[in-house]
Amino acid sequence: MNSQPVYNLDEIIKNNLDSEQWKQFKRIHYGRIDHGELQLKPSTIEESKKNGFEVAAFSVDAAKEVRTTNIVKVGLIQHSIVLPTNEPIVAQKRAVFDKVEKIIQSAAAEGVQILCLQETWYMPFFLCTREKQKWEEFAECPKQGQSTQFLRKLAKKYNMVIVSPILEKDEGVWWNTAIVIDADGEYMGKHRKNHLPSVGSFSETPYYAPGNTGHPVFQTKFAKIAVNICYGRHHALNWLMFALNGAEIVFNPAATISEFGESFWGIEARNAAIANGYFCCSINRVGTERFTTTTNQDITRSYYGSSYVTAPNGCRTPGLSRDKDGLLIVKMDLNLCRQVKDHWGFPMTSRLELYAKELRDKSL
Amino acid sequence: MNSQPVYNLDEIIKNNLDSEQWKQFKRIHYGRIDHGELQLKPSTIEESKKNGFEVAAFSVDAAKEVRTTNIVKVGLIQHSIVLPTNEPIVAQKRAVFDKVEKIIQSAAAEGVQILCLQETWYMPFFLCTREKQKWEEFAECPKQGQSTQFLRKLAKKYNMVIVSPILEKDEGVWWNTAIVIDADGEYMGKHRKNHLPSVGSFSETPYYAPGNTGHPVFQTKFAKIAVNICYGRHHALNWLMFALNGAEIVFNPAATISEFGESFWGIEARNAAIANGYFCCSINRVGTERFTTTTNQDITRSYYGSSYVTAPNGCRTPGLSRDKDGLLIVKMDLNLCRQVKDHWGFPMTSRLELYAKELRDKSL
Repeated sequence: MNSQPVYNLDEIIKNNLDSEQWKQFKRIHYGRIDHGELQLKPSTIEESKKNGFEVAAFSVDAAKEVRTTNIVKVGLIQHSIVLPTNEPIVAQKRAVFDKVEKIIQSAAAEGVQILCLQETWYMPFFLCTREKQKWEEFAECPKQGQSTQFLRKLAKKYNMVIVSPILEKDEGVWWNTAIVIDADGEYMGKHRKNHLPSVGSFSETPYYAPGNTGHPVFQTKFAKIAVNICYGRHHALNWLMFALNGAEIVFNPAATISEFGESFWGIEARNAAIANGYFCCSINRVGTERFTTTTNQDITRSYYGSSYVTAPNGCRTPGLSRDKDGLLIVKMDLNLCRQVKDHWGFPMTSRLELYAKELRDKSL
Repeated sequence: MNSQPVYNLDEIIKNNLDSEQWKQFKRIHYGRIDHGELQLKPSTIEESKKNGFEVAAFSVDAAKEVRTTNIVKVGLIQHSIVLPTNEPIVAQKRAVFDKVEKIIQSAAAEGVQILCLQETWYMPFFLCTREKQKWEEFAECPKQGQSTQFLRKLAKKYNMVIVSPILEKDEGVWWNTAIVIDADGEYMGKHRKNHLPSVGSFSETPYYAPGNTGHPVFQTKFAKIAVNICYGRHHALNWLMFALNGAEIVFNPAATISEFGESFWGIEARNAAIANGYFCCSINRVGTERFTTTTNQDITRSYYGSSYVTAPNGCRTPGLSRDKDGLLIVKMDLNLCRQVKDHWGFPMTSRLELYAKELRDKSL
């Protein structure tokens, strides 16, 4: 049961305002009048239609300066699961792999250099069932797991950095983890989700512990990137640490339903991009997932997609739709990060030593 | 020269969507379908028309629970200056006092219990002139200054807590300060702006130093309140400390122009309310201020108002207009603060000890 009608707010607004009103809406709401829409190849549009996903592409430029431009093309994929959740796990995974591979092909054809998938992208977000054992096969070894092997090949083939949020199993212990594969197909490292929700049926603490990998930033072939997984977006200090460690792009792969703060979705990651002077890429899954527990309880969860990107100057792209698989491509000049920091002076005025002291006193 | 046409985005959207679209827009954009509009007294509407300011009033409820409701009525005032900036300073102040007094009267008639004015509310925001000496008379003693004397009388008369952001002079040294007057008219204390902009012509560092009063929370008659002055809203840790010190309502009095991140205005304070589990009240001045410097440079600044309130659950009110004086009244149940913290668990999952350590390492 999908309790919320499917809407793309951006489309509604666009279709109902006159051109001057639309301009002012964009100025205030998106932070710029021109979305910087990029033309897609006809073959990409054809492929997307054939395979049932939407594609949108935008550009965020920086001012010309002494440094040469530092342009990178980033892709985000939002998608639904394919098979019912009671099918064999290996088949469920394979079906998602097949679907996602086609979207990655289109991303590659459009020159995407860094790609990020949604939280635990190859499985239904079964954590709402509060059952663990039956889902065991979804938990993978970061380096050797099926999904890593699958993506490493694609990364190498397409010269593409890939961020893969998985369910990790390490010596039998689970973690909610994102792994980073460099453009040569090599495994670079991982980040474990720092903050775990225990909100209603989204109680993840029975499954895994809060991350113990700190706030790593990965110097990939194309940019310095970090991953703030899902609920971690509610914590300002989590975002801040990635900035202090040098991130130029922070991905926020998520699995979030409309009852859970859909009205925050456009706020938190955008605020983080502004506050921290990096690009924020927000990805949420789509589709409805149905589960029957071993005690015959029926559980249904619908995800609202709406993936989008915010630049460090606060400009944001329109969101992908609330219900369709999609690929969002953003060509960005990373020089904008330092330009914005220089202009606004947030790092310069941050008084971190004051807060380090106050926080220490508070947490004693 | 007002380079931006005057728009109230909320009004534009409302007038152009059909009722189902408008409902969905409100759900996603404001965080609730029903704004909770409150009826105003006919006399208030009459007074507001007569005196040329707008009034809007909304209600934010909390769930029933074991505690009794903890309802407080908060008022925000946004306004323009009255006289040209080259008039005698004492006359400029007096003219603003007279205007604001009428708005406070209406607030009192509507039962407002805690009122906050905009940043350095009784003066033009002359800091863009980079001149200091000629404006000296605007700098006041917090306890004995003209504006404090003026507001203490009103506070006592109306049994109203008043937050008064002033330009402070202390032994000849200036500060950007907010003072808090309790409902009995007594001076409670002050907070000095923690973070100062040096952005283009908004360079405040020649005028005063970053605040040295930490993050005080004032236990007033009606609520525990704090003040995060203007540019401090860009700093997540500033917001966080007020929460850790127990604030239920944080005011953000500001003076900000549309070239300066108008697209952030709806983001940062709202994010702070969500992240920290308190009500955020954002106030920005309106009107165009013109200055001629002693070197005959003409300077013009236009402020975009748009004052609004966000509840800890992320719901926000529509904004006041971009160009008119206004009074925004919000009746809020402070029980919502703890309810939201209990529901979302952000304080419980904040891992402050981790960040205290990481921040200390970073700021060494």
